[in-house]
Amino acid sequence: MDAVTFHGPRDMRVSRRPVPVLQQPTDIVVKVKLASICGSDMHPYAGRGVQLDAGIIFGHEFVGEVVDVGSEVKNTKIGDRVASAFTSSCGSCFYCSHDLTCRCSHEEAGRFGYIIDGNGPQGIQAEFARVPLADSTVVPVHDSVTDIEALMLGDILPTGWYCAAKADVEPMAKKHGDGISAAVVGCGPVGLMAILAAQAQGATHVFAVDKVPDRLELAKQFGAEPINGEDVDAAIAAVKDATGGRGVDCAMEAVGHQATVNMSFNMLRMGGTLSSVGLHTDEEFKAFTPWDGYNKNITYRNGRCPARVYMDDIHKLVKNKHWGDPFPGEKLITHRVSLHDEAAVREVYDKFERRIDNCTKVLLIP
Amino acid sequence: MDAVTFHGPRDMRVSRRPVPVLQQPTDIVVKVKLASICGSDMHPYAGRGVQLDAGIIFGHEFVGEVVDVGSEVKNTKIGDRVASAFTSSCGSCFYCSHDLTCRCSHEEAGRFGYIIDGNGPQGIQAEFARVPLADSTVVPVHDSVTDIEALMLGDILPTGWYCAAKADVEPMAKKHGDGISAAVVGCGPVGLMAILAAQAQGATHVFAVDKVPDRLELAKQFGAEPINGEDVDAAIAAVKDATGGRGVDCAMEAVGHQATVNMSFNMLRMGGTLSSVGLHTDEEFKAFTPWDGYNKNITYRNGRCPARVYMDDIHKLVKNKHWGDPFPGEKLITHRVSLHDEAAVREVYDKFERRIDNCTKVLLIP
Repeated sequence: MDAVTFHGPRDMRVSRRPVPVLQQPTDIVVKVKLASICGSDMHPYAGRGVQLDAGIIFGHEFVGEVVDVGSEVKNTKIGDRVASAFTSSCGSCFYCSHDLTCRCSHEEAGRFGYIIDGNGPQGIQAEFARVPLADSTVVPVHDSVTDIEALMLGDILPTGWYCAAKADVEPMAKKHGDGISAAVVGCGPVGLMAILAAQAQGATHVFAVDKVPDRLELAKQFGAEPINGEDVDAAIAAVKDATGGRGVDCAMEAVGHQATVNMSFNMLRMGGTLSSVGLHTDEEFKAFTPWDGYNKNITYRNGRCPARVYMDDIHKLVKNKHWGDPFPGEKLITHRVSLHDEAAVREVYDKFERRIDNCTKVLLIP
Repeated sequence: MDAVTFHGPRDMRVSRRPVPVLQQPTDIVVKVKLASICGSDMHPYAGRGVQLDAGIIFGHEFVGEVVDVGSEVKNTKIGDRVASAFTSSCGSCFYCSHDLTCRCSHEEAGRFGYIIDGNGPQGIQAEFARVPLADSTVVPVHDSVTDIEALMLGDILPTGWYCAAKADVEPMAKKHGDGISAAVVGCGPVGLMAILAAQAQGATHVFAVDKVPDRLELAKQFGAEPINGEDVDAAIAAVKDATGGRGVDCAMEAVGHQATVNMSFNMLRMGGTLSSVGLHTDEEFKAFTPWDGYNKNITYRNGRCPARVYMDDIHKLVKNKHWGDPFPGEKLITHRVSLHDEAAVREVYDKFERRIDNCTKVLLIP
């Protein structure tokens, strides 16, 4: 089969690989219907952070059709269309039972396409993929759910959901009723999903901060109040002006830079919650000082999304057209490329990294 | 009357001051029965952080008897013995209604004895004290509550309680049942109270980390497992060994140093909560990097305790001898000094700062 393989920073290729087969009774094999590139792929792509093994199949966002199932698999059968969390997880270890499937301690657990020293499952930018621990990793999707929705169910939508959940949107709305305000800093795919999530979890006023006009326009279409973050002080002042001078209850950072976490902090009211899901590899914490955190009575959360924890609930919302039909996330797709065309794959990775042609979300089509 | 007054770093005096009178209909005036020195007093005492006005009456930990009440005061009457939060608060502004009485926006709100440019209520290390916004600042205490218990009800006990609450001890215990582990780093008065609080909120295994043998002994008497923190790596290893290699669910930092926050972070499991109530004035955040925080799926909280929020509940526990009779906190009192004796007051401040004679908690007796 053809697969997109990683050979070092900015060296993506399309390679021939054997079609994967069942290795464990808890495995399934899927025929990939759509795959995508995630913003977090840009770290290894650009050579930041950890060093992945050369030659691995890349990527972790996909929707597929089950073509083979292991003998212990109960929740899916051949022919099912499945959405998959971007990490495999066992569902029963300490971390899985503590809502942290992203930190599953099972030896077959890991982020797809994130192989270091031979450890971790292969990626899914390929014609077929093996999914370990299938019962606690994938969700069969309803016929009314589109392939793009199913693709988004595995990473960007749960990550946006997690960002809002960890910003305490729902508990604040339950406790204090209407009027919860939230700011989403960074309106890439995850930030845009975080807008939808914050609204679903009870935020009544969502500010969306970015520098890119097209993304701000999408944020507006998603129901947020767009704020251009080019002038940081003006953006903070605009949020404070609209919140009685206090700042928002919930700040949601979806970029992964010190500057955006700092901006989020400065948009937050005292006693508010700052949730950061942007993966950043900095060696220093510069977003706020201990003294500033003390004076703000800060709650700060940061971490990888345990996607599988949220997928059943989100699947229901998508199936029930909670966010409208078509799902607003479909608007994010800017590029569609054949997974078999190496030149096109290389070009679209470059466009995605450098945001050429407003490249926001790429479909790789097997 | 006599009052302990602050005139600059390490310049405490006993001065004559007029007996305070009612200024607002929401005021009360109390005759101070006992006052104390708080660890947080050591910041202005030593000249760290903010600069307080010279000549102010110092201190914020006290128990008193009501000797005059304003016309709008409803919850206390002359003759009542009252415990007081270390900050006055209105009970009705945005922050008070969001459980953040420590950030009350009323002009009469503030920390006792923390006057900057004339703003804030006078301190309480004096024969009498004016308490603004009395109905939402003080709690009349039951006859069975001792003066020392009442004194501790206003700061160290609610701050320890807040530290445990913000470490998510209770929600974790409710969700996951028995077996919640917590580490308290720093066994000064607040840390020791945090041990009691963590137990009351549902922690089944509390580790207590300090370098001072006497404090570790107290921690042990309070039901915690003492761990000497002199050897940082060994202390972290001991906590990990006792928690299946993972680390504790809840880390509680009660010192206010980068090193202790860092140690708390390293004792915490992935997905755990780090609650820091130590006030620290550092300009840089060195306790963990964004990358480390991401990989730990961290929840980090820091801030001043909204003591009044917790005082009713804690008062009931103390009254009902929840923690035993006598209250274990009584063991903390190491020094008793007449508030009228300037030389003794100066000496005990010095002992408290430098921890001479195991100086842990000082009573200043009017």
